[in-house]
Amino acid sequence: MNDFADALAKPSATKKALPEELWQALQSLLENRCTRASAVCQHHGSDESSYPSMLPDAVVFAHSTEEVAAIVKLCHHYAVPVIPYGAGSSLEGHILALHGGISLDLSQMNQIVAIHQEDLTATVQAGVTRKQINLEIKDSGLFFPVDPGADASLGGMAATRASGTNAVRYGTMRENVLALTVVTADGSIIKTGTRAKKSSAGYDLTRVFVGSEGTLGVITEVTVKLYPLPEAIAVAVCSFPSAFDAVNSVIQSIQMGIPLARVEFLDENSVRAINAYDKLSLPEKPLLLFEFHGSATGVKEQTELVQEIATSNGADHFEWASQPEQRSRLWAARHNAYFALLQLRPGASAITTDCCVPISRLAECIIETQLDCERHQILYSLIGHVGDGNFHVLMLIDPNNPIEVANAEGVNARMVSRAIAMDGTCTGEHGVGMHKMAFLIEEHGSAAIHMMRTLKQAFDPLNILNPGKMIAWDEA
Amino acid sequence: MNDFADALAKPSATKKALPEELWQALQSLLENRCTRASAVCQHHGSDESSYPSMLPDAVVFAHSTEEVAAIVKLCHHYAVPVIPYGAGSSLEGHILALHGGISLDLSQMNQIVAIHQEDLTATVQAGVTRKQINLEIKDSGLFFPVDPGADASLGGMAATRASGTNAVRYGTMRENVLALTVVTADGSIIKTGTRAKKSSAGYDLTRVFVGSEGTLGVITEVTVKLYPLPEAIAVAVCSFPSAFDAVNSVIQSIQMGIPLARVEFLDENSVRAINAYDKLSLPEKPLLLFEFHGSATGVKEQTELVQEIATSNGADHFEWASQPEQRSRLWAARHNAYFALLQLRPGASAITTDCCVPISRLAECIIETQLDCERHQILYSLIGHVGDGNFHVLMLIDPNNPIEVANAEGVNARMVSRAIAMDGTCTGEHGVGMHKMAFLIEEHGSAAIHMMRTLKQAFDPLNILNPGKMIAWDEA
Repeated sequence: MNDFADALAKPSATKKALPEELWQALQSLLENRCTRASAVCQHHGSDESSYPSMLPDAVVFAHSTEEVAAIVKLCHHYAVPVIPYGAGSSLEGHILALHGGISLDLSQMNQIVAIHQEDLTATVQAGVTRKQINLEIKDSGLFFPVDPGADASLGGMAATRASGTNAVRYGTMRENVLALTVVTADGSIIKTGTRAKKSSAGYDLTRVFVGSEGTLGVITEVTVKLYPLPEAIAVAVCSFPSAFDAVNSVIQSIQMGIPLARVEFLDENSVRAINAYDKLSLPEKPLLLFEFHGSATGVKEQTELVQEIATSNGADHFEWASQPEQRSRLWAARHNAYFALLQLRPGASAITTDCCVPISRLAECIIETQLDCERHQILYSLIGHVGDGNFHVLMLIDPNNPIEVANAEGVNARMVSRAIAMDGTCTGEHGVGMHKMAFLIEEHGSAAIHMMRTLKQAFDPLNILNPGKMIAWDEA
Repeated sequence: MNDFADALAKPSATKKALPEELWQALQSLLENRCTRASAVCQHHGSDESSYPSMLPDAVVFAHSTEEVAAIVKLCHHYAVPVIPYGAGSSLEGHILALHGGISLDLSQMNQIVAIHQEDLTATVQAGVTRKQINLEIKDSGLFFPVDPGADASLGGMAATRASGTNAVRYGTMRENVLALTVVTADGSIIKTGTRAKKSSAGYDLTRVFVGSEGTLGVITEVTVKLYPLPEAIAVAVCSFPSAFDAVNSVIQSIQMGIPLARVEFLDENSVRAINAYDKLSLPEKPLLLFEFHGSATGVKEQTELVQEIATSNGADHFEWASQPEQRSRLWAARHNAYFALLQLRPGASAITTDCCVPISRLAECIIETQLDCERHQILYSLIGHVGDGNFHVLMLIDPNNPIEVANAEGVNARMVSRAIAMDGTCTGEHGVGMHKMAFLIEEHGSAAIHMMRTLKQAFDPLNILNPGKMIAWDEA
């Protein structure tokens, strides 16, 4: 945590004034699509986390890959930081302008480039959001499954290796990106792949950039896989005596090869919050929210098997939602859980974190983390994409109370150490940003971090691409 | 093709003698597990391709990651090439010792490190083969699906991003490797990931090394995903009037979301060859070999749908193999296709190649490639993992007849250009090795190749790791 604390303490130490020549060049390139207006800089220097704003010196709005290349080339020439900005929905400080520089807003790059229905692929500009792409293809019988909570941009989702509730069946951005168009640190434009479903032709540049959080290049176009809409969908909610019983039901279902489309765990606190917020009356006990995709008979078979497994693990409430509106209501409640929780303590901020462990260790990791929150009297909720071994903790704190902040960060640090000790990872889907940099060495070891740093320094020798994120420039 | 031709013409131009001090150091480290015996060097300087041997100066057999690290450290000190060697089943010249040096044989690193049944993961040493791992877990109810034709080692499969017949359902090594232990160019040992199913923690070093063909590091351990054995399996063969009809059936099945476990295309020549070799009597027409996995009712449903689709595309022969021995016989025939074809022209060599295109372009790519072979009177067969858009051409030639060699290489070059023009790739699963280096620029463009070269030079500054493969060291 020291890096982050240090950065907060002296954000301006390495911040240089924006060169006037660069500003002039940006203006002649983009005209009214660049600004130093403080409201815009304020907006682009804040994310969805509870961290204080760190403002860029200017914000530019690009409309094409070529414009992005021209902008990066200019910033490269003047050695000024470039921070790619999509929907601004980061939870870990990814888009904060730690060293000032240019916030490169890609949200107006929101064109669908091509839908290849027959090949189940789509190519979109980086600013297209996950809801937008699904709206565009809704009559094609296809859908794009990756769904982080926010309506994030596909460029941002690729950059943070995002996932969400469907990942247990359909994978994360790691599995669903086929190719990217990327502007590299010197302003060159590269394509990292083709639309072929698989390839052994060269280094996997696609996955070098997926999850690189804007620190190796600026993603301007994304080619993703699409999937046929399932013939039948069923949703079930199911309550358990304990988190342990709920997680065991999931493990057993996965071991039997049941192709769960979604399986979300909500702890008692989450259920209480969404009951209040969404006017539901779910039993206030650990709960699983299942979704099944397949043919009508396939879905029936899956649901029967899962109900049997859940019952054998003590489930005492099993409710089906087969009508689309019931289903939507439950999933909306799940997606609103963050806002629902905020209502439990008006005026509080949420510190959020996530980790991911092998599923055999999940119940243990969840329960120990809950006990830790309770020991520190933190108002929290815990929600998990449990089929993947991934869970989130949201802690409601008064950001002006240093004891509460320290307690929450302590829970986070211990949860991460616990996950790593279980052969898991410090973040399953939120990314590193600034908040988890200190944990990377604990997870990967110094030799692997050295290779990551080697990659960063080779791809961005002037350290202009989202500097100060993901990995410290110098060896510790 | 010029790089490869040049390399063949002057392989010894850059070859230095093995330093005697290095040889002494290797001997004291490994005792009788290092040799300069010409028969062993000959064996390690040849692969399954038709290319002439290129011999290493010495062969060493490692037993542990620590030994590999010590060997690489020595080679780094003396700037001597290190060529990782698994099962030697490369088809593209990956393990040829173009610049001499040390062949680092990992086949004796064949220990299972850990099976985590509950988590569906296995960690093995790099020399464990795909058949060995499946034998080890056969009583667990799990299996490992990636199946290139040869009984390759998992280290080699990771290094070439291998796939095979199950990839359409279960993915390739890209999707199935969770983590690697790698020895880097200076002899450091890194772990590239954890056993968590997903992670957003740092650059994806796992996928930097998957498919890097020994040019960025030496893979010594591999952690892979396992899958529950399906409750029911069914196999069907089905003949079509044309390749076009066969491929259309596959596209339509995939668009309907039918989760085909395997779908192999065999052209008339392949069917003729396996009929003769395996004493089968399949109709000598374009053929699809399907496999379905699922519950009993799920498999029944899938097979009925596929039969309906195939019939609507003119299939005139549909045969079920529901007994394990019938199934095994058909798959054995498929896996023997390479050897079956060799019988059609005793004494000939096979030049093999593969490419991969978006499935909507597959029929066109297959048919044009067949016509090209016929135009040049080449005895060939064409077999495809068609659900992925991937196919192989095997051409039987007299290696001493330069016209036949040139004709076959011409077919290969035109097939690759055709695939790239269709937004496909020059190799779906065989890898680059030496044979496809010249096509990488055509596929990726010079700016992307520059980034690949940047990666290689950063990770292996002395160019000791499998030098002369994948990507030329200097800009053209």
